[in-house]
Parts: sequence; structure tokens; C-alpha cells
Amino acid sequence: MDDTGASLQATMSAMGREAREGAKALRLATPETRTKAIRAMAEAIRADAAAILAANARDIEAAKANGLSGPMLDRLMLDEGRLKGVADGVAAVADIPDPLGVETARWTRPNGLDIARVRTPIGVIAIIYESRPNVTADAAALCIRSGNAAILRGGSECLQSNLAIHAAVVKGLEAAGLPASCVQAVRTADRAAVGMILAGLDHNIDLIIPRGGKSLVARVQAEARAPVLGHLEGLCHTFVHSAADPQKAVAITVNAKMRRVSICGATETLLVDSAAADKLLPPIAEALKAAGCELRGDEASRAIYPMEAATEADWTCEYLAPIIAVAVVDGVEGAAAHIARYGSGHTDCIVTEDPAAAERFIALVDSAIVLVNASTQFADGGEFGFGAEIGIATDKLHARGPVGAEQLTTFKYVVRGTGQTRP
Amino acid sequence: MDDTGASLQATMSAMGREAREGAKALRLATPETRTKAIRAMAEAIRADAAAILAANARDIEAAKANGLSGPMLDRLMLDEGRLKGVADGVAAVADIPDPLGVETARWTRPNGLDIARVRTPIGVIAIIYESRPNVTADAAALCIRSGNAAILRGGSECLQSNLAIHAAVVKGLEAAGLPASCVQAVRTADRAAVGMILAGLDHNIDLIIPRGGKSLVARVQAEARAPVLGHLEGLCHTFVHSAADPQKAVAITVNAKMRRVSICGATETLLVDSAAADKLLPPIAEALKAAGCELRGDEASRAIYPMEAATEADWTCEYLAPIIAVAVVDGVEGAAAHIARYGSGHTDCIVTEDPAAAERFIALVDSAIVLVNASTQFADGGEFGFGAEIGIATDKLHARGPVGAEQLTTFKYVVRGTGQTRP
Repeated sequence: MDDTGASLQATMSAMGREAREGAKALRLATPETRTKAIRAMAEAIRADAAAILAANARDIEAAKANGLSGPMLDRLMLDEGRLKGVADGVAAVADIPDPLGVETARWTRPNGLDIARVRTPIGVIAIIYESRPNVTADAAALCIRSGNAAILRGGSECLQSNLAIHAAVVKGLEAAGLPASCVQAVRTADRAAVGMILAGLDHNIDLIIPRGGKSLVARVQAEARAPVLGHLEGLCHTFVHSAADPQKAVAITVNAKMRRVSICGATETLLVDSAAADKLLPPIAEALKAAGCELRGDEASRAIYPMEAATEADWTCEYLAPIIAVAVVDGVEGAAAHIARYGSGHTDCIVTEDPAAAERFIALVDSAIVLVNASTQFADGGEFGFGAEIGIATDKLHARGPVGAEQLTTFKYVVRGTGQTRP
Repeated sequence: MDDTGASLQATMSAMGREAREGAKALRLATPETRTKAIRAMAEAIRADAAAILAANARDIEAAKANGLSGPMLDRLMLDEGRLKGVADGVAAVADIPDPLGVETARWTRPNGLDIARVRTPIGVIAIIYESRPNVTADAAALCIRSGNAAILRGGSECLQSNLAIHAAVVKGLEAAGLPASCVQAVRTADRAAVGMILAGLDHNIDLIIPRGGKSLVARVQAEARAPVLGHLEGLCHTFVHSAADPQKAVAITVNAKMRRVSICGATETLLVDSAAADKLLPPIAEALKAAGCELRGDEASRAIYPMEAATEADWTCEYLAPIIAVAVVDGVEGAAAHIARYGSGHTDCIVTEDPAAAERFIALVDSAIVLVNASTQFADGGEFGFGAEIGIATDKLHARGPVGAEQLTTFKYVVRGTGQTRP
């Protein structure tokens, strides 16, 4: 390791130790203090708007010089409206019921021991993310709401914006009497910092959350020496059952695919029940086409409605684009088999008016979110009422689906006795 | 890889694929079917007692030939009484409330979406364990109760006993109409099988649970390519606060240390409040000594009661033996600081009659189980009312503390709509 590397290592190690101190302060802070900090963060973001937008302009300029354009540049860009949205999002987290200290179970044993399971913070959470500068604010707010210290490492293309927002976050912490160590931001674009975080900063990180593209998440899951909460991809299906209401099927499918094509809850594959595909597929295909969507179908679909031929790769492709794969399957069992084989365990929907078919689909499909008669685009912490989310977890342990403040907690058992000894 | 290695790999890969099928069968099985299977397992263990004891005798003979003796040999040994205990333990799991399908939350959104969080199985769980053959039966019963397929890999010194118990488990599954793929046992002592399980059997393992010594758990945590639920060690503390009832302090400390010294919930370090150590330590030390316990103290303890000098290593040693480390600390803050520095986040106790001190201790100590006025030896799934446990988790994600059937589940969100699309 050269001098710069050694110096970065020292900086990052210190950040880990500080975060542990920040976590201790948060563990002892009252819900009111944490609420006050979050509100003050939102206010500071509003007050610092000029500085944040100026920093964002510097990022945008550098990004343009690096050849960034189109949607990538758009994701990075802040304006007054978007920044107001960022501040509003933070303020909304202040209103989420505080998850800490809640007893999720309590019972008394025959020997009189009173056992309570109580929500507690996880400790120190590192969030590694790309692009959108609002993540800096969202992650800070959700971590404070859940009593966790945060180490934030955003994308290098967004460094100035992130640091400007982080400065406002720190003002909010200080306004509530919390130390700046509660939310720290990595102040360098040096990628070596990511490796150091993944190595765990001397056991000072309890959880790592990657939020970004597939390659980022895959790297974090492969290299991390601390637990990871991440989602790899959202390969969501909408299955139109033979007993579907045709109008609902059209409305739901078009919304699930086309409302926003770039989010993880967007439907990528349409499955249509063979028992009624002749009748159900054409109006859906027409509506998708009219909305600007390209269709790629299997043989059975193409026999019903003209479209491009799908290849095997289409069943596993998270397009994030106005393209949909279409397959005809045999009933709920056929749909569930397709989803089990190709899905990512994120979000899948059945459209049907037959309650028995709906329940069978719910039982068979092992995904974080299973929907009946509603668009897969509802796969979102805000839409679930969580106030905000830090991502959608597709792993099966700890948290699954939208990760909000409650999902960033753990618990301890508090056992109150009167002198019991074990026989 | 030589021929044998390739053949083992093929066997293990097939086991992974079969387990996935078993998991599917369990996902669709009713609670009654799973209960029936568990009861039939217990009956088959009772009916097969002669065969199981004969197999155990072969393991014992081989172990003696390999020089095993004392407690190690004792852990391995089954007799009629112990085997009855194994069958009773399995039968007890049949009586645990079924965790699956339980709605842990349900709410309706303003747009009418009805969102339920429902407990579901994790999928395929691999359990890698040492010694005690009862783990074969306990793990099988808990996995069936929680709807998970199991892959069991016990210690080679116990292979014959495990396979004989496993044969009874399979009889139980079949009696309930469940396929044998629901619980499979590795039939070789070849350690390469462990490596293959840790590699994840082609993504056919959703969770790995190591149950055994520190080196086994450390290896699993370092090498596993699937999520791991493990506990590294139980370095438990009993803190006697200045407001402790002296008699309770004596009874609790002696029980916490000496009831059974070899379990993870045994207290390893006694912390005594400096404000009353003069008065409180001597009777506790006398009672421990009378019970056959060696004491190793810091300077302040030794100034109050004669004992060996503790070194730094004593604060981090999980003795699992009749030895206790003793330190004098300054109040709740001092105790919490010692526990934060040296503890393992497993189980820690305060003895006090002062409720404010108890609450402060509960807030400050970040362990899976925090006890007030009760022995640390209560850290046990059975004592918590979980019916049985597969271990005590000290990680902070997913499950913490005793891991019973409920802790072996995940959940999915079931969202029922009436045609909602997202604006």
C-alpha cells in the first residue's frame, strides 16, 4: 500500500470507529431527539438549496465533460423542484412511527420469567450507492429513524452534490444535539474506499446495503465481509389468468410495464393463460403497442398476435426498457413454474376474478411480493406506507420486499425475573 | 477432482436438486400433514430404538478405537433413556404452534390495496453439526415444522447413529405422505461434502446453520456462499449491581456459572459493582468456591477476596469449565463498557432491585438476550417456550437469540387489489 493508500486506510478506519460511537449515541437518543434531527435535516436541505444546487452544477459539468448524457445525466441532475422533493422525503421520514423500543412479542413463562422481544437498532450501516443524490438524504433519514449510524459512499459522479447534502444532514444532527459521527460520508472518489468498507472497517460495520446496478450489487455480495442486504434485480411477471377481467388485465399490464420502465417493479414478462389467451392477449398486446411497447413472444403468443420471436434470453432479461416478453402458459401451475424457473423472487402478479386461482398463485409463487389484481409497479416502500425505502430486498433472510426504517432494525430479548435459577 | 470426488459431487448436486423438490412439497403441505410427519418421526425413533442403539454402539466402538474419551465420548453416547429424550423432543415440536401462513401484519392503503405480511418457509436449510446425535432428530423436526427441506451433515464420529435416526425420520415423512427429499442426510464421512454444501449446491441451499465448536462455525462463516445463521460463542456476564439482593446474587451467580459449565449460556465473567463489592463479592465468591469453581480476579477483586490473578486473556475466554473471571466495575456504565469490549453479544444479566438501573442496563447492553434477576442459563429455546432450538444466534440479522421453528421462516407480502394501477 502506498502512502495515499495508507492514509485512506487510516481515514476509513477512523470513520469506522467514529461510526461505532455514533451508533452508541443513537442507541441512547430518545425518539423525540431522532425526530427532531430528521426534521432539522429537511430544513437544512431547504436552507442550503443554493449551495447544494451549485455543487450539483459542478457534478453535472464534470459529468458532461466525461461524456455522460441522456438518462444517466438526468438521474444525476437536481433542480429546485427535485431538491424540494428530497427535503419533503426527509420530512416524511420524521412522521413514520418510531420503530425502536416496540415490543413485537411479550409473554410470561410458567416460572414467572417475563420475556419481551424489543426492536433495537442494528448498529452501523454502510450504504454504497450510485447516481441519484437523493439517496444521501433518504439513507441518512431512514438510518436516524431506525437508530443506526450510517456510512455513506455515493457514486463519484455525484460526489459534490452528495457532500453538499451531507453537510445539511450534519447540521440537522447537530441541531438535535447528536454527533456528526451518526452520519458520515466518504469524502473521496477513490474506489479503494469501497473495498475498505466491504472489508468491514475492523468489524465496525454491521450491515452493508448496496443500491445501484447489477454489477455493484454483485460485487458487494461477492466481496463483503459483513452481512449484505441487497437486491440483484426485479424480473417481475404479470400473469393474466383465464378468469381475468379483460379490462383490468389491459389496465394492469400496461401500467405494470409502461408507467416507468426503468424501475425494479416494472413487469418484464407477460404470462397469459392458454385457456383464454385467444381472447385475452390481443387487447393487451394492442394496448401495449399503442403505448409504445415492443412485444417479443413465444410460438403460442405469436400464433395469436403478431410480434417478434422471443429467445431464451428474453425470459431472464430485466429490460428496464419499453420491451415485454410474452409467453402462453397452462394455468396457475404453468405460470408458477415459469416464474420459479426465470423469476428473481421480487414481485409477481396474477390478474383473475377467481379467488381460488389467486390463493393457489399466492401459495405457489415464492416472491417477496405477490400481487392479485394490481400493478407490479406498487412494489415500493412509499406505496406500502413505509414512508421511504432504501431498496427492495430479494434475499429471504432478515428483510424481504421494501426496506424501510422498521426493516433496518433488529431486536433483543429482555427477560425480567425475580431471582429465578434454572433447575 | 478424481473419480471419487466427481462421484461425490454428483451425489451432492443431486441432493441439492432433490431438496428443492422437497421444499416445494413442504410449501404446499398443510400444517396437519407436517404435524403428522413429526409425530410419526417420534414414533419411528421409538420403534427403531434397537437399530439406533446398535448403530450408536458401532460409532462408540470406532470412537474409542480412535482414542476418544471422557466428555467427547459421552456427548456421542445414546442409551435408552437418552433416546427416549430424543423422541420426546421431536414429539414436543409437533405441539409447537405452526408458524407458517401466520399474518404478522395486515393493513389497507388509501387506494384500497390490502397488504398482508405472511410467514413462509425459507426453502432449503443445510445444517452442519458435530457430535450429539439428537441434533439429527431436532433439526429434522424443526425444519418440517417450519416447512423447510433439510440437508443434514453430522459429524463423522456419529455417522452410523445419525443415519439410523435419519432412517426413522424418513419413515415419519413417508407415513404423512411427504417425500424423503424433505430431509436428506449426507451418507459419507468424506469432509469434501462439507465444502460442497458451503459452495451452495448450485444455489439449492437458502441457509446454512453450523452447530458445533468455534472452528466449525468460523469455517462455515468464512467459506459459505449462502447465508449463514450461526453463533460463534457465548461469553456471558453476570453483573451484580450495588442495589442487588445479596441472596439472589449468590443464587443466580452460582446457577449461571455452575449448573452446567459446558453450555453457551453459562456465565464466564462476574462483574461486581464497586459501590458495594466489599459487601457483595465475598458471599458470592465463597459459594462459587464451595461449588467447586476456580476464581480469577482483577486487582480490585483480589483486594476483597483471595483468588488467582486474571490476565487480559481471561476476559475473552469462553471457559466452558468451572472457572470464572471476576472484575470490579463502576456501576451500570462500567459493566456495560466491559461487556461491550469483551462480550460476544449472546446473553448478559444484571442483578439489582433498582428498576432504573435495570432499564439502563437493558438500554446499554446490545446482546441477543438481556436478563434482569435471572440466571444466564435460561438462554435456551426450550426455556423461552420455543419447544426446541437449533442454536442461539448472535448475529444481528434475521434471527437473534434462540432459533426455533418461527426463526426458520421468512415472509412474503401478499397484496390483494381490485384492479389498481399506480398513478
